[in-house]
Amino acid sequence: MEDDIIYLDHAAATPLVPEAATAMMDAYRDAPGNPSALGHSGRAAARLLEEARDRMAQALDFTPERLVFTSGGTESVGLAVLGTLLPRERGHVIASAIEHPAVLGSLQILQRRGFEVTLVPPDPGGVVDPERFAEAARPDTALACLMHVNNELGTVQPLELALGRVKERAPSCTTFVDAVQSLTRLPLEPERWGADLVALSAHKVGGPRGVGALVTGSRRPQRIFGGGDQEWGVRPGTENVPGVVGFVAALLAAEAHRTERASQVSEVCAAFEEELRRQVPGARINGNRDNCLPWILSISVAGISSEALVRGMDELGVLVSAGAACHARAQKQSHVLRAIGLSPRLGTIRVSFGAESTVDNARRAVQTLARTVKRYAIG
Amino acid sequence: MEDDIIYLDHAAATPLVPEAATAMMDAYRDAPGNPSALGHSGRAAARLLEEARDRMAQALDFTPERLVFTSGGTESVGLAVLGTLLPRERGHVIASAIEHPAVLGSLQILQRRGFEVTLVPPDPGGVVDPERFAEAARPDTALACLMHVNNELGTVQPLELALGRVKERAPSCTTFVDAVQSLTRLPLEPERWGADLVALSAHKVGGPRGVGALVTGSRRPQRIFGGGDQEWGVRPGTENVPGVVGFVAALLAAEAHRTERASQVSEVCAAFEEELRRQVPGARINGNRDNCLPWILSISVAGISSEALVRGMDELGVLVSAGAACHARAQKQSHVLRAIGLSPRLGTIRVSFGAESTVDNARRAVQTLARTVKRYAIG
Repeated sequence: MEDDIIYLDHAAATPLVPEAATAMMDAYRDAPGNPSALGHSGRAAARLLEEARDRMAQALDFTPERLVFTSGGTESVGLAVLGTLLPRERGHVIASAIEHPAVLGSLQILQRRGFEVTLVPPDPGGVVDPERFAEAARPDTALACLMHVNNELGTVQPLELALGRVKERAPSCTTFVDAVQSLTRLPLEPERWGADLVALSAHKVGGPRGVGALVTGSRRPQRIFGGGDQEWGVRPGTENVPGVVGFVAALLAAEAHRTERASQVSEVCAAFEEELRRQVPGARINGNRDNCLPWILSISVAGISSEALVRGMDELGVLVSAGAACHARAQKQSHVLRAIGLSPRLGTIRVSFGAESTVDNARRAVQTLARTVKRYAIG
Repeated sequence: MEDDIIYLDHAAATPLVPEAATAMMDAYRDAPGNPSALGHSGRAAARLLEEARDRMAQALDFTPERLVFTSGGTESVGLAVLGTLLPRERGHVIASAIEHPAVLGSLQILQRRGFEVTLVPPDPGGVVDPERFAEAARPDTALACLMHVNNELGTVQPLELALGRVKERAPSCTTFVDAVQSLTRLPLEPERWGADLVALSAHKVGGPRGVGALVTGSRRPQRIFGGGDQEWGVRPGTENVPGVVGFVAALLAAEAHRTERASQVSEVCAAFEEELRRQVPGARINGNRDNCLPWILSISVAGISSEALVRGMDELGVLVSAGAACHARAQKQSHVLRAIGLSPRLGTIRVSFGAESTVDNARRAVQTLARTVKRYAIG
C-alpha cells in the first residue's frame, strides 16, 4: 500500500503485522510436514500447532482443549450455529437483529430446515436491551446468539446480563458470541459473559487471512464436513499450521499492548470526533457513544450517498467503508443501520482505526471527508 | 527442515515453493484491504484475486467463473458433496470404497440424514472397474463420487469410462471427482472426465496450507455456511487473497514443468523399485503398477508393523508415511488397504515423491528401509 494512503478500514481487514509474517514463514520453512503424519515431519508440525494453541489459550486464560482452529470468522460462526443445531430435528433460536451476516445467513439456513428464529431489535443507539433479548427465550430455545461488538457501529452488547437472563429462562440453551470485532480490543471472557461458544478471526487482529478459531466449552458443536480427526474431530482437514502460528503471533503482539492501544485509539477517535464537529457540523455519529469501542465510528451525512462519500474520500487517499465490507457492493442500506432506524437517505460511512492510526491521520481524514461533502453534497 | 532429511511424504503435504511464498507476501504488502470493500483498498485486493483466478483458469483451460476458492481439499469435497445433496430431502449416492476420508465422512453425514449410499469396491489392484461402478447407478442416483488418483496407492481411476456410463444410466446425476492428488501431475480435464465438480488442494502442489478450490460446471452446489456473497455466493467469508495468489503461483510453476517432472519422477520411482527388488526382495508394491502415478508408492513388508517401518526410517532421516497422513495416528489398517484385500499383518508404508526428489535419494531411502526391516522384522 502506498505510504500516503490513510487506511481506516481495519474492521474489514487489518494489515498483516510483521510478527505474524515472520512466524508464518518460519513455520513453512521448519515444519513442511503434515501434523497428522507419524514421525519427524509430522511431529515438528504438530508441535508448532500445539505450542501455538497453548500460547493462545494461556494468553486468553483458558485451556487449550477449548480452541478449535478454523478457516476464519465465517466458518467459526457456521460451525457454532449449524454444528449446534443441525444435529437436532427442530428448535428455537434467538439472535440480535444486528448480528453479522454470517450469523443471520446461518439462521436463514436453519429456518429453511424448519427451525424457528426470533430476531431481537436493538435500541436506536444500536445496543440490545438485555431484558428484551432474554424475553425472547423459551424453554425450548436451543441457541442464543449475541455479538460482542457490532461491526458497523462499534457498540458493545451487554453479554453478561443478556446471556445470564437467557440461561435462567432456558437452562439448556447454548449461548454463542461473535467476538470477531472485540478480540484484542476488549478482554475475552467467555465465563463472565456466560458464552458457551465464541467465534474469532485472525485477519481482524493483524493475523493472516483464512484463519479463525472457535472457543468451545464443555459443549462442542458437531462437525459440518466429513474427514479426518483434526481439531478434536470437530473440524477435519489438514491443519493450517503456518496460518495458526501467524494468528497467535499477531494476537499475542496485540494483547501485549492492549491497554496502550486502547488509550491511543481513544485519543485518535476523540480527535476525529472533535474535528468532525468543527469541519462537518451536520454529520451525525450513529450508535450510543457511551457504549461504544473507539475503534469503530459510524458517521452519517445528509445530501450525499454512502458510495459518493467512500469513493470521494478514496480518491483523496483516505480509505473508509460504507457499512460493513461484506455487503458494501450490494449498495443498499445495511440491516444494522435499518435496525437502528437510520434514514436510508443519509450517506453513511464506517471509519475503523487500527494500531497504526494517529491523531494527525484522523484529522486529515476528517478534512478529506469535509472536502468530499462540499464537493458532492446536494443542498 | 534439516538438509540431510529425505522427505518422501509429498502426498501428505508439499513444502511451500518460493514462487508461492513470494506471491503471498507481496499480496499481504500490496493489498491489505478486504476485496469486498468499495474503493481503492478493496479494488487492489479484488484485482489480485481475480487475476489469480483468471490465470489459474487459463492454465487449466476453462473459464474463471468455474473456480470457487475454499479453505482446502476437505472443504472443497464437503461443499461438493453436501452442497449438492443437502438441499434435497433424499437421494442415492455412489462412490468408490477407496475415496478419501473427506468424501466418505461426508457420505456418512448424508446417511445419517436418510440418504442411501452405495460404495463400490476396487479390484485387488486398487482400480475401480468402470462397469461395476456404473452398475451401482440408478435413475434416482443424485451424486457419483470417484477420485482421480488414490492417495494411498497412486492408482489412476478410469474417470471417463465410469462417469460416462453413470450419466447414461442416471442423466441428472451430478458427478464429482477428487483430483487433489492428480493436480499438476496429470492434466485436469473435467469435460473429458464427465465431471461436474472437481476438488483441488493447494498444499499438495507446493502452495500454502488452508487453500483449495472447487471447479464447478453449470451446476454449482449450494453454500454450506451463511454469510457474504463471496465466491459466487457459494463460499461466504473474506477471501484469502494471499493464499489464493500463493496457490496459483505454485500451480503455474508446477504446470510449467509438468512433463519434465513426470519423467524425472518416473525415473526416481523406477530407481526406487529397482533398488527395492535388490535390497528388500520380500517387499511387495501394492496397487496395479500399470495404472499408477509414479509419485506414490505403497510398499508392504511381512514381519514388521507399519509404525515400526515409519519410525525406524524416520530415525534414520527418511520421512515416509503409514498409509495416508490423515489417519496415520489411528494406527489401524486403512480402508483403502482393506478394500484391496491386503493382509492387516503386513507393515505398509507410503512413499510419495516430489519435485525435489532425486534418484540418489530414492536409493538411499531404500537402503534405509532395508536397514529398518533388518533391525525390526521378526522371522
